[in-house]
Amino acid sequence: MTVPGVLNVLFKYVDENKSRYIENLREAVAIRSISSLEEWRDETIKMVNWTADRLRKLGFQVSLENIGMQVLSNGTKLQLPPVLLATLGNDPKKKTVCIYGHLDVQQATIGDGWDTDPFELVERNGKVYGRGSADDKGPVLSCLHAVEAFQKINADLPVNVKFIFEAMEESGSIGLGELIAREKDRFFQNVDYICVCDGSSLGKDVPCIVYGLRGFCFFYLTVECASQDLHSGIHGGAVCEAMTDLVYLLDSLVDKDGKLLITDIYKDVIPLQPEEETIYAKIDFNVEDYSRTVNATKLLHNDKVKLLLNTWRYPSLSIHGIEGAHSESGEKSVIPAKVTGKFSIRLVENQKVEDVQASVIKYLHKKLEERGRATKIKVSIGGSGAAWKENPNHPHYSAAMRAITSVYKIDADLIRAGGSMSVITTLQQITGKNIINLALSSGDDNTHSQNEKMNIENYMNGTKVIAAYLYEVSQLNK
Amino acid sequence: MTVPGVLNVLFKYVDENKSRYIENLREAVAIRSISSLEEWRDETIKMVNWTADRLRKLGFQVSLENIGMQVLSNGTKLQLPPVLLATLGNDPKKKTVCIYGHLDVQQATIGDGWDTDPFELVERNGKVYGRGSADDKGPVLSCLHAVEAFQKINADLPVNVKFIFEAMEESGSIGLGELIAREKDRFFQNVDYICVCDGSSLGKDVPCIVYGLRGFCFFYLTVECASQDLHSGIHGGAVCEAMTDLVYLLDSLVDKDGKLLITDIYKDVIPLQPEEETIYAKIDFNVEDYSRTVNATKLLHNDKVKLLLNTWRYPSLSIHGIEGAHSESGEKSVIPAKVTGKFSIRLVENQKVEDVQASVIKYLHKKLEERGRATKIKVSIGGSGAAWKENPNHPHYSAAMRAITSVYKIDADLIRAGGSMSVITTLQQITGKNIINLALSSGDDNTHSQNEKMNIENYMNGTKVIAAYLYEVSQLNK
Repeated sequence: MTVPGVLNVLFKYVDENKSRYIENLREAVAIRSISSLEEWRDETIKMVNWTADRLRKLGFQVSLENIGMQVLSNGTKLQLPPVLLATLGNDPKKKTVCIYGHLDVQQATIGDGWDTDPFELVERNGKVYGRGSADDKGPVLSCLHAVEAFQKINADLPVNVKFIFEAMEESGSIGLGELIAREKDRFFQNVDYICVCDGSSLGKDVPCIVYGLRGFCFFYLTVECASQDLHSGIHGGAVCEAMTDLVYLLDSLVDKDGKLLITDIYKDVIPLQPEEETIYAKIDFNVEDYSRTVNATKLLHNDKVKLLLNTWRYPSLSIHGIEGAHSESGEKSVIPAKVTGKFSIRLVENQKVEDVQASVIKYLHKKLEERGRATKIKVSIGGSGAAWKENPNHPHYSAAMRAITSVYKIDADLIRAGGSMSVITTLQQITGKNIINLALSSGDDNTHSQNEKMNIENYMNGTKVIAAYLYEVSQLNK
Repeated sequence: MTVPGVLNVLFKYVDENKSRYIENLREAVAIRSISSLEEWRDETIKMVNWTADRLRKLGFQVSLENIGMQVLSNGTKLQLPPVLLATLGNDPKKKTVCIYGHLDVQQATIGDGWDTDPFELVERNGKVYGRGSADDKGPVLSCLHAVEAFQKINADLPVNVKFIFEAMEESGSIGLGELIAREKDRFFQNVDYICVCDGSSLGKDVPCIVYGLRGFCFFYLTVECASQDLHSGIHGGAVCEAMTDLVYLLDSLVDKDGKLLITDIYKDVIPLQPEEETIYAKIDFNVEDYSRTVNATKLLHNDKVKLLLNTWRYPSLSIHGIEGAHSESGEKSVIPAKVTGKFSIRLVENQKVEDVQASVIKYLHKKLEERGRATKIKVSIGGSGAAWKENPNHPHYSAAMRAITSVYKIDADLIRAGGSMSVITTLQQITGKNIINLALSSGDDNTHSQNEKMNIENYMNGTKVIAAYLYEVSQLNK
C-alpha cells in the first residue's frame, strides 16, 4: 500500500525524535503511580498532573474529574486520583476519536527479582526496561507524541481528538464507570470511534488488534484461628490452624488441568461454535515459541487451538498469594492467626460478574461445611469487570488495520485476549460506539511481571500507528 | 518451707533493684538480634558481645567460640555469631552448674500487628513488652542478675557457674551441636548439672519445670512454573500454575483434625501408656482458660488430657506461609513463578529426625506423582532437632522444685511441653548429665508472636529462682 504524504513526513519527524521520546518515558516511569498501594497514592495523582501539564502544552482543553473516595479494606477512605479528560478540536466537519489509556502501574520492587530498579528506565539492547514502559505509559506517550507530531510538521490534525486517561486501571478502574455514565452526553457526546490503547500483541512479530477480552473478579478469602499469631511448638496440636483450612479451600478451587471446580461457573459459558476453531487455527501463534518465551515448566495445553481457547474464551482461575502468613525468607515457626488467600477468575462472554461472585461465595461456604470442622471464614470481593467482544468486521477495524500496515508493512492479526479491561465493557454499554483495542506492546514485554520492558522499535512504531490511525479514521464515512 | 537466711537477704536485694533490671532488659531488647535474617547478623553478634562485656564485669572468664559459617539458601556463606562460654569459680569442693540460654530472637516488625515498636521496651500494667523480653533475654538477664546479687550481698557463690549462651536458637541452633561435642572434655568436663533456662509455663499461675520437649523439622517445599511471574489474564489457562500445585501439596499434609496424612510419621510414635493419662489429668491446666488466653476460634480437642497429649506427646504439623507469592496488601493479578511453602513438624520421643525428613520427602513426591500433571518441585530441609525426655524423679529436679517453692510459695508443676530445643537433646547425649528446663516466663507471654511481654513479677522472681536453684543444688550430694 502507498503511505499518504503527510504520514511519510510525520514518520520521518518521529524517527528524528527518538531520544526525546525516551527521555519523556524516563520521566513518566520514575513516577511511582502504583494504584494498589495507598502509600503511593500521591505519586499516582502526580502522574495525572504530569500528563495534564503536557496535554495543556499541546493545546488540549483539560479537566481533572473528581471521582470520589476509595473505601479501603480496613474501612478508611482514600481520595481517588482524578480521571483526566482532554479535548483538542471541535470541528463539526471532522470525525471525533476518543482514546483511552491508563497512567497507573502494577506493584514492583527490586526484591521481586528485577535486574534493575523498576522505576528507573534502563536502555539495553534496543529495549527500555521499567515498570509501566509497556503497560501503559509508553503507549499513552505515543498518543501524545502522535498529536504533537502533526503540530510540529504543521499538518492539520485530521480528526478531533479526545483522551480519557485514568489512574486506577490496575486496581479495578474504581469510579471510572460512574464517570463515563455521567459524561455520556457531555464529553462523549460527539465521539464517533473509541480506541483503547492498552495491552500486548500475541507474539513478538505480528501486531494485533483485539476485539475481545475476558472479564475479571478478584476475591479475598480470609480464615482466622486466633486473635494473634501463635508459637507452633506450644500450640501445634491444640488449635485448628487457619493455614490448614485456607490451603484446603484454595485447593478446592481449580484442578490440575486448570478446570475450575466451582461447577456453577460454567453454566453461562457459550458452547464452542463450529467456526471458532477454524478462526483460531489461522492465527499466527506458535505454542513452542510461546512456551519458550514464558519459560513455562509445563503448559496446560500443547495444542495451539486449545491453548488459545483456554486463554481467550474459557474462564481461568489463578491463586495470587496469601496475606498474613510468613512470607519473608528464613524460618519462623509460627501459626499465623489470620490469613487471606487471594485469587481471581477471568470471565468470558455471557458470564455475569454478580453470578460468578455469588457462585464462588456459595461454593466456598459449601466446601467449608463439607469439611465439618472449621475456623472463621470471610469471602470479600475485589475489583471486577465483565468480558467484552466487538464486531471485527466494522469499518473502524479496517481503518486500524490499514494504519498498522502502513507502519509495519504486514497485516495485523485480529485476536481476542485473556486479560481484562472493565473500561471497555463500560464504554461499549454507555456510548454504543464501535471500540477497538490497539495492542502496541509486544507479547514478551513482561507486563505485570519482573523486568517489564518496551522494545524501542515498538515504542516508535506506536506513535506512528496512532498518527496513521487518526488519519485513516478521518477517511471513513461517518 | 523455711527460706535460708542468705536467700532472704538476696531476695530483698533483688526487690530493691527492679528499675535497674528493667533498664538492662531495655538495652538488650533494643539490640535486634534476629538470627533468621541475614541483614540483622551484625546485631546478633552485637548482642553476644554486649552480654560478654557484662559477664566479664562480674568476673567471669569469657570465651567467644567461632562456630564457622552458615550456608544460606542461595548458596552464599555468612559468619555465624559466636557462642559465648563463661566460667566463674573452679572450687573442686563445690558443685558445678551449667546454665544454657539464648541471645537471639524471632523476627518482628510493627507491621505484624504489634501495638508498639517490638524493639523498644514498653512498660504497661506490670508488664514489659518487647521482642525477647520473655524469650529469652529476660531469663538470661535473670541468670546474670542472680550471680551479681550473690556478689553484691557479699555472699559466697554456692556453686561454680558456667554459662553457655548461643545466638542461633531461633534458627535451629546451627553449629551448636558440634561445639558442645568439641567442648565435651573441656568446658563441660566438671559440670554436674545442666539447667536450660528458656521456655514458658503452661498457665499463668503455677510455675513449671519441664522434663520433656518435642523435636522439630522445618521444610521448604518449592514449586516452579515459569522463569518469572506472569500476567494472570494473558497466561491464565495456558500454564500449569505453581500456586495450584503448592496448595494441593500443602493440603495433602494434615487433615482437619490435625492428624498428619504422612502416615509413615506415626510408625515410631510410642503407644499411649496406661499411667500417662493419669499423670496428665492431675496437671493444673484448664482448657477453657487456655482457649480464652489464645483466643482460639476453635480447638482441635476440648478434653484436657487429649489436648495435652496432642501438644506434648503426639506430633503436629503447622504451615507457616508461602514465600514468593503476592503477600502484600492490595490486588496483584499475578501468576507467581516460583513459590516456597514453609511448614514444620513437631516430633516426639522415639521419632528420628532423619526418618521423618525422609518420610516427608518421599510422601510429597508420591503425592505429586499421584497428581500426574505437575510443575517442578524441590523439598529442602531446614532446622531440626530430636525430641527430649528426662527422668523427673532425679534429685536435681527436687532441688529445682524447692527453689521455686521458696520464691513462689507454691509447688511447681512437672510438665512436658510442645516446643523444641535441639540443644537439650545434644547436651543430654554428649554430657550424660541430668538436665532440667526451667520455664521462667508465663504461658501468656506471646513468645514468637505479636506483643511478646514479660510480667515484671516473673522477671523479678526469675532472678530469685535462679539464685535459689544455685543454692539448692549446692546442698545436693553429688
